[in-house]
Amino acid sequence: MRMYVEVERDGERDAVAIEEPLEIRVDGEPLSVTMRTPGHDEELALGFLFGEGLIAEARPVGLSEDLASNVIEVTGPLERDPGRRRFYTTSSCGVCGKGALEEVAVASEPVGPGPRIERALLASLPDRLVQPTFERTGGVHATGLFDAAGNLLVAREDVGRHNAMDKVVGRALLDRKVPLADRILCVSGRLSFELVQKAAVAGAPVLVGVGAPSSLAIELAADRGLTLAGFTRAGRTNVYAGAERVSD
Amino acid sequence: MRMYVEVERDGERDAVAIEEPLEIRVDGEPLSVTMRTPGHDEELALGFLFGEGLIAEARPVGLSEDLASNVIEVTGPLERDPGRRRFYTTSSCGVCGKGALEEVAVASEPVGPGPRIERALLASLPDRLVQPTFERTGGVHATGLFDAAGNLLVAREDVGRHNAMDKVVGRALLDRKVPLADRILCVSGRLSFELVQKAAVAGAPVLVGVGAPSSLAIELAADRGLTLAGFTRAGRTNVYAGAERVSD
Repeated sequence: MRMYVEVERDGERDAVAIEEPLEIRVDGEPLSVTMRTPGHDEELALGFLFGEGLIAEARPVGLSEDLASNVIEVTGPLERDPGRRRFYTTSSCGVCGKGALEEVAVASEPVGPGPRIERALLASLPDRLVQPTFERTGGVHATGLFDAAGNLLVAREDVGRHNAMDKVVGRALLDRKVPLADRILCVSGRLSFELVQKAAVAGAPVLVGVGAPSSLAIELAADRGLTLAGFTRAGRTNVYAGAERVSD
Repeated sequence: MRMYVEVERDGERDAVAIEEPLEIRVDGEPLSVTMRTPGHDEELALGFLFGEGLIAEARPVGLSEDLASNVIEVTGPLERDPGRRRFYTTSSCGVCGKGALEEVAVASEPVGPGPRIERALLASLPDRLVQPTFERTGGVHATGLFDAAGNLLVAREDVGRHNAMDKVVGRALLDRKVPLADRILCVSGRLSFELVQKAAVAGAPVLVGVGAPSSLAIELAADRGLTLAGFTRAGRTNVYAGAERVSD
């Protein structure tokens, strides 16, 4: 599947990442629309539904027969009502986000003990993350799944950084490799609450990002027992949670 | 409103951007939850609703009396049913996104003629975009509203890049300055379909980004008559649509 198109700009040819809507249907009923880069749509749909707590394992899934229609069909039923996540405001402190986790987080168990990893290995992961479409367009995010020795197992790209993570988790679901108990996830961008949540639900003990973490990302990582490392670039990394897994 | 907190990591103090949920209610009914950096929540709510085509002008809006509750109340009624955007797949070509616009785009008129701008001025805008929380945390996006001479009129930051744009548009709505007929919007990140849509609905003729545009962002900009400039950094910029407004 081509992930970029060539366009003309300033009188030259230039490659830009493709962005298109994908509608996810469950038993024929539209559930959500996401803007994504085509390719690995089955993984994206499964990873998304899993991250939202809507499915517990891989399901039969397939693109609509009309390939041009940007619709993917997933077999139900779902684990819970797919309505909005509950969001009741009872105890948020308004500054540090305490209480907010209970309001918006998808339920997940604490992650397992996972591996112990040298800081230098963590710091090297973004350089090991293969990003062919980024090389070509500068316009996509990536997520990589690594083993504890730093070997890249799966890499996916997408204009949406959450989608790249969903594709990796969806691949792991299809391969029956979830929970990702001894694995490391590495993302090319910032560490938002949503990305930590997806990693936590998938049972990954370590999440590394090139960019900055948010306050709620750190809080959720600490709550679920993840190691969270940000600003991972140029051979350095900052560890914001779960430092017990990181050795110098 | 503080937009960052200090945390301890690797034995040092470090500043991270605050991320917290904000629930938007209309006439007391929950409409959506967005993860955002607190501050300018009224602008965020109004800009978001306007960008979705749900309101046509500013509405009475206010934070819940319980400030800690992260709820904002907007007075209705809405312009249309706030259910999901329609997404019917009839004519998408599956590669270039043709047809996708009609499926997912919020209705908006073509933008007006707008100003003519020198390329060097466009290229200078990211450097003029004040980003105090980014300076401190490295963890937020920014959107700036500029006049045609390159003067910064409004700047907003947020962990979510769409939120920063919503805040700027919301401010303009409160100031009765929409449509942004002779203005330039500049964003610190990539140019997604959603950001072009928000600019188009607000009537801004020029959108500049530090990062890459997506295919659908370029297509929507061309369709609505916007000038779209990406990779705007180090004194250079690439013009992907609406080049007739740009002079060398």
